[in-house]
Amino acid sequence: MADADPQTPIRAGIPEHGRVPKYFAVKTRLEVVLDELGEGGLLPTERELAARFEVARETVRQALRELLIQGRVRRRGRGTVVAGPKLEQPLSTDSYTEGVRRQGRVPGRNLIALERLAADPALAAELRLAPGDPVWHMERVLLADEERVGLESTYLSVARLPHLERDFAPDTSFYAFLRERVGTEPAVVDERIETVLATPREALLIGTPPALPMLLLHRSSKDEAGEPLERVRSLYRGDRFSFTVHLEKRDKRD
Amino acid sequence: MADADPQTPIRAGIPEHGRVPKYFAVKTRLEVVLDELGEGGLLPTERELAARFEVARETVRQALRELLIQGRVRRRGRGTVVAGPKLEQPLSTDSYTEGVRRQGRVPGRNLIALERLAADPALAAELRLAPGDPVWHMERVLLADEERVGLESTYLSVARLPHLERDFAPDTSFYAFLRERVGTEPAVVDERIETVLATPREALLIGTPPALPMLLLHRSSKDEAGEPLERVRSLYRGDRFSFTVHLEKRDKRD
Repeated sequence: MADADPQTPIRAGIPEHGRVPKYFAVKTRLEVVLDELGEGGLLPTERELAARFEVARETVRQALRELLIQGRVRRRGRGTVVAGPKLEQPLSTDSYTEGVRRQGRVPGRNLIALERLAADPALAAELRLAPGDPVWHMERVLLADEERVGLESTYLSVARLPHLERDFAPDTSFYAFLRERVGTEPAVVDERIETVLATPREALLIGTPPALPMLLLHRSSKDEAGEPLERVRSLYRGDRFSFTVHLEKRDKRD
Repeated sequence: MADADPQTPIRAGIPEHGRVPKYFAVKTRLEVVLDELGEGGLLPTERELAARFEVARETVRQALRELLIQGRVRRRGRGTVVAGPKLEQPLSTDSYTEGVRRQGRVPGRNLIALERLAADPALAAELRLAPGDPVWHMERVLLADEERVGLESTYLSVARLPHLERDFAPDTSFYAFLRERVGTEPAVVDERIETVLATPREALLIGTPPALPMLLLHRSSKDEAGEPLERVRSLYRGDRFSFTVHLEKRDKRD
């Protein structure tokens, strides 16, 4: 990528009218160090980096904070190491499970809550229910290779899945359950993706610092008959995930 | 949405082991105030809010900072007002221009740079060029209703578009130019979307605070013949944009 050219970060740091903020210059020099160290490489201490770059430790700390938020480095024990590339999750009608497997990772899920709620008007409309009708809310932490990477809330009609609590093992793939036990699956999916900040509770559940930028996916699925199936709110660590999509022009000319 | 239930933000702020961070409780109460005020409504001053919620001004400031980053409020002159909803830009082979128009906004672009570069190996491979071959780099600020909302860098083969500098008006739609003047357009597009922090230069060009979470789209387009057309790096304000996608299961069963 031309914009990954070693010159670019420096250029990118220079506002039209002037000088590079000190922390950003340090961050740029740190990125060169990260490339030399390679994935998993252990960074020198803040003290050592401050001495090497001849800046205050707080300046190094600010640079490291941004590199941490962007997923370039990760805490390991009391040290900081070079992070691997972000996961590339395809946007598709498939489940989290299938997307993570396709990347050679081991998917996992930990149940936080499976509760019955009364559908509010918006959710009721989306699931073609009456306001107040019972819905399942299933909240699960998403894992990749044992690492907590996301938090997923799924809303389902209780009338449609009356025995979910009994029949579904919440640490397994919900879409596999739908296919094998219910005989259906999402066929048409509308998603909206945005960046949000993790709430303190979300940060605690996912094990991130609070206010870390996350990717939030709002998903609304219908089955092959066009019947509403689920409403999902999936939160993914912004430092660990990216999403890919393949698009083809509908009305090709000849 | 059940998770937009007034209870939720409060619940969402309670870590398993305990208390709501003070700034987050204030943020939650502020969100109620925002709903009452409605879009464009002017918030009370930090001093008034601190007095109303009986907290330090710094606590109010932290809550407002997060609401600003999330695009719930915006600065207007010396005050703070309730922001409108985020733009919902469809992920498609169409251009920024067409996506923004579809939302009833007026798209615009300001040229920052149109320069010739030597393709580095990665870019050369992507555009099926030899390393060192000349490429155009066109950098433009993206506007919606006159507001700066993004920054786009497009990389193109000079051999394929030798007279771009002469023929293309950089404040117009590049895809319209491709269709009308070159007789081609993107037919197959691969995109990767992630969240990143604005660099100081990007923040200056887009007019955001530095380190604001942004949505970064990496786009690689091919024409109808399968020939590489462009590589694009589009940065969108995370507080103003969301992206939508409609997905259908490829192998439907019967």
